[in-house]
Amino acid sequence: MLTDLFSPTVQHSLDLAGIFVFAISGALLAVRKNFDVFGMAVLAEVTALGGGLFRDLIIGAVPPAAFTDLGYFVTPLVATLIVFFLHPEVERITKAVGVFDAAGLGLFCVAGTVKAYAYGLGLTFAATLGLATAVGGGVLRDILAHEVPSLLRWDRDLYAVPAMVGSTMAALLIRFGTLNASTSVLPVMTAFVLRLLAMHYHWRAPRAWHRRSAASEEAQA
Amino acid sequence: MLTDLFSPTVQHSLDLAGIFVFAISGALLAVRKNFDVFGMAVLAEVTALGGGLFRDLIIGAVPPAAFTDLGYFVTPLVATLIVFFLHPEVERITKAVGVFDAAGLGLFCVAGTVKAYAYGLGLTFAATLGLATAVGGGVLRDILAHEVPSLLRWDRDLYAVPAMVGSTMAALLIRFGTLNASTSVLPVMTAFVLRLLAMHYHWRAPRAWHRRSAASEEAQA
Amino acid sequence: MLTDLFSPTVQHSLDLAGIFVFAISGALLAVRKNFDVFGMAVLAEVTALGGGLFRDLIIGAVPPAAFTDLGYFVTPLVATLIVFFLHPEVERITKAVGVFDAAGLGLFCVAGTVKAYAYGLGLTFAATLGLATAVGGGVLRDILAHEVPSLLRWDRDLYAVPAMVGSTMAALLIRFGTLNASTSVLPVMTAFVLRLLAMHYHWRAPRAWHRRSAASEEAQA
Repeated sequence: MLTDLFSPTVQHSLDLAGIFVFAISGALLAVRKNFDVFGMAVLAEVTALGGGLFRDLIIGAVPPAAFTDLGYFVTPLVATLIVFFLHPEVERITKAVGVFDAAGLGLFCVAGTVKAYAYGLGLTFAATLGLATAVGGGVLRDILAHEVPSLLRWDRDLYAVPAMVGSTMAALLIRFGTLNASTSVLPVMTAFVLRLLAMHYHWRAPRAWHRRSAASEEAQA
Repeated sequence: MLTDLFSPTVQHSLDLAGIFVFAISGALLAVRKNFDVFGMAVLAEVTALGGGLFRDLIIGAVPPAAFTDLGYFVTPLVATLIVFFLHPEVERITKAVGVFDAAGLGLFCVAGTVKAYAYGLGLTFAATLGLATAVGGGVLRDILAHEVPSLLRWDRDLYAVPAMVGSTMAALLIRFGTLNASTSVLPVMTAFVLRLLAMHYHWRAPRAWHRRSAASEEAQA
Repeated sequence: MLTDLFSPTVQHSLDLAGIFVFAISGALLAVRKNFDVFGMAVLAEVTALGGGLFRDLIIGAVPPAAFTDLGYFVTPLVATLIVFFLHPEVERITKAVGVFDAAGLGLFCVAGTVKAYAYGLGLTFAATLGLATAVGGGVLRDILAHEVPSLLRWDRDLYAVPAMVGSTMAALLIRFGTLNASTSVLPVMTAFVLRLLAMHYHWRAPRAWHRRSAASEEAQA
């Protein structure tokens, strides 16, 4: 998607890596919800491709990349198979999965911003769609799995903010005409590192004022 | 959206007012669900813009208005800030919020019908999309907040019916070639007043026959 | 949708029959959830038309068939009325409804595959969208009704697999240039019969390995 930024092969490999780690998180949630192997495949596909699908529908890029690139389609199925046979092992390396997921977050927020801008959206909206590309799949995953979207919950480490910073930086680089293969590494790495720090230090976003009382803890339940 | 009906400035101001009150309802639900400030912003944006976004995807108006008009994007963020700092005060004026929400309902059902018709849909479908424009954001809000959509619940005051009456009236005015800036006030006001009456008298729609027994009350829990 | 396969009238009648039985299942769930008559109509429309709507948005067929064909729109309303007045009788013939639903599944997975292919998608993606056409409405129904999508649950009889077999067979018939009015009966009937067998023998898809322990039963609750 980052045409003109990386060579197509490099870009495609990065996309597939991001899709793979997102798909792992979808398949793992399906196992925890006791879904069958078909449910695992659905959650893997939706988590990996849902954000880009939403972006492509908004910018009018139909059929979306998810329905034209066989690699995009098959990668989540491979992730499903791995989780199907090895899920206790995969669960054990949750931390490693989290690191890869952070890398996917960084890649997708930048790639999404660039593609939305290429389709004519303003920079603010391109950055917003970059964010949506990165986090949209996870929201769809949680809705299908009948859970409160972890993106919106107060008691989870920052997830959207790193992606927001990354896509905003990408938009600024576009704005100043300085986005290329080398500089695009900067927003990707920033989002990646911010997410790792958020996981390590359990950073959280504030809730509305006066909500830090005991009463609010109740409301949470 | 009601091009040729009102002056663009008047129309845009009405749109922003509707977006603002819908966003308030989204941000307030996020506070009640104990979401963080990012979750508040997401629910505010989705509630305010989700209905129009759905309509624009259906009629092929891409990118949707929500992704081309900065005012549409920024207004829910302003609503989020207000609720963030003042939510106990906003909660206290829930009744006033309800009145503004009713106004938004009236505006959106008519604007949605007119825009869908302008994109070539038949009158029945234009009215249906007008209804969807008015109530779609609230449904998406409830799904994201992991609640039963209040639109579908039996134990809530009529919400869809006033919008349905408004969009049907707008479609009839189009049908008889009499829709203009003055006459379009009629369906807007009708939907608005019907919703106010529904709130005041707690009007409800009937459930399926033989469901008014004690057994059904149980099923509700 | 199966243009060139059946005469338009035959095809349209088959479409309406599928829409009708899917709508019945949506309206029945609304009654069980204690929704009002408007909620019944929404669930009926969404269940019957949601899968095709998703497919049409993906392939860029806007406005979708659901918003251009009055018969598609009115049929779910008729189903709603029938369930509204006769739901205890309809509940009693759940088994018959299940047989019709299986027929709808078979028809929709083939019709969806054919339409997606006609819009230029590759065969793998056409078959995937055929599957989505058949099962998408039920997923949207369950999300709106605030239930775990029955499609993903382990403890339900196979539903997606028969549709997957049907749409794959349709794609293969297209691939070998042998799809016509007579041969298209084959994938429809296969999906139909497989679903009937799955219901009769309570076939289920496997869950991830090592999940058949007592611990996993707990997780299910």
